[in-house]
Amino acid sequence: MNQTIEMLLNHRSVRKFKEEPISEEVIMKLVEAAQMASTSSFIQAYSIIGIKDEQRKRRLAELAGEQNYVAENGHFFVFCADFHRHEIAGEMEAVQVKAAVESAEKMIVGITDATLAAQNCAVAAESLGLGICYIGGIRNNIEEVSKELHLPDHVIPVFGMCVGIPDADPSKKPRLPKEAVYFEETYPDDEFQKEQLEKYNNIISSYYEERTNGERTDRWTEQMVSMLSSVKRKHMKSFLRQKGYGVN
Amino acid sequence: MNQTIEMLLNHRSVRKFKEEPISEEVIMKLVEAAQMASTSSFIQAYSIIGIKDEQRKRRLAELAGEQNYVAENGHFFVFCADFHRHEIAGEMEAVQVKAAVESAEKMIVGITDATLAAQNCAVAAESLGLGICYIGGIRNNIEEVSKELHLPDHVIPVFGMCVGIPDADPSKKPRLPKEAVYFEETYPDDEFQKEQLEKYNNIISSYYEERTNGERTDRWTEQMVSMLSSVKRKHMKSFLRQKGYGVN
Repeated sequence: MNQTIEMLLNHRSVRKFKEEPISEEVIMKLVEAAQMASTSSFIQAYSIIGIKDEQRKRRLAELAGEQNYVAENGHFFVFCADFHRHEIAGEMEAVQVKAAVESAEKMIVGITDATLAAQNCAVAAESLGLGICYIGGIRNNIEEVSKELHLPDHVIPVFGMCVGIPDADPSKKPRLPKEAVYFEETYPDDEFQKEQLEKYNNIISSYYEERTNGERTDRWTEQMVSMLSSVKRKHMKSFLRQKGYGVN
Repeated sequence: MNQTIEMLLNHRSVRKFKEEPISEEVIMKLVEAAQMASTSSFIQAYSIIGIKDEQRKRRLAELAGEQNYVAENGHFFVFCADFHRHEIAGEMEAVQVKAAVESAEKMIVGITDATLAAQNCAVAAESLGLGICYIGGIRNNIEEVSKELHLPDHVIPVFGMCVGIPDADPSKKPRLPKEAVYFEETYPDDEFQKEQLEKYNNIISSYYEERTNGERTDRWTEQMVSMLSSVKRKHMKSFLRQKGYGVN
């Protein structure tokens, strides 16, 4: 064990920040750390938009579903999958790249590249004592968010990230048992998984029970099926296609 | 600056490892670190398969395109997007989740969840002095890889990761200029981006020139368009659909 691992194990999402902007120097360091993450075949298929403008932050907070902390933080990042840069490269070299850029394979590459960069940014921020929270909520109104940020075709916002000085000390939520997530050699059978989920349901029920004086006792499987009982963000399939993602 | 950030900034992919397996204790610590990464709405939509079996590693190395280091390392992980677990939860709670699980939105969630976990694993490994290399190559033959690992529907291998004691000291490749990746408030115009790419082309050309005594002078845009001049991994679109990803 070492300090870095201890920090990773101690992660929680922070949703309340002090009213103090992150310095330019720190923002630049976080971006630098993000850029040094691995990238598929050196393709660097992502961009990061940093938002400081109060009004824009308010609009994004609203589009993300009234999440105040999207506006109230030390800095707000939006991580985008980005192949527009590669289209410009295509123009510069007079080579058609559209078909490849619009392949399902490159959609995976863009999303993973943006996410690798984001997690390095998150780790770097937490190593400086800052708190972070990923904001998948910007996908609620992904088309409006894209317009707000002037994103061209082949650029999609994957998620936002609030960064700032924590003004809360949220509790650490117990993850799935290791045996339910990490498998040796091959994927296990359903019976085994069911046992793990039952074990986990007990852990999660007790976690809520303790924290709410017995008022909440949700099972994890209960939370999940409630969330998955209907399709959310139904616009996503046509949005991706319209932006040139996963067409081929 | 601190040790963690210094380490992030010092990342390079390692493709040659000492013949020494990673201990069980370290593997478990890496998995634990992976699990503590953020996850969309607590959904934990990923699984990790650890491969030790020499013959399976050889087969995966072949399927990934004859990459020796897939077989020769301290440990090999495969990170999968996984909603099969949520289907089991659906059975346990007697709620239909298939439509939601097969939405384009959840495809994004699965890929990002797997990637967040993976990058935490990578950072934890590097903090212990180990080297890592992501293996997107397992997507070359993604259907055969899935069969090899007995992956059911709604589970897709996103990438592999070699971990081990480095037996090489690869050079650090310069990333895109910060100005070409990080934008304030809104996405920039093409003219600005073109200037950045021209600047970067010079950096990359010099990088290769120095390292090869003038034999290689590739521009980055040249490398990119050569890679993107045709569609690779054409099977991906139908594979995703067949596995129940991005259907709705």
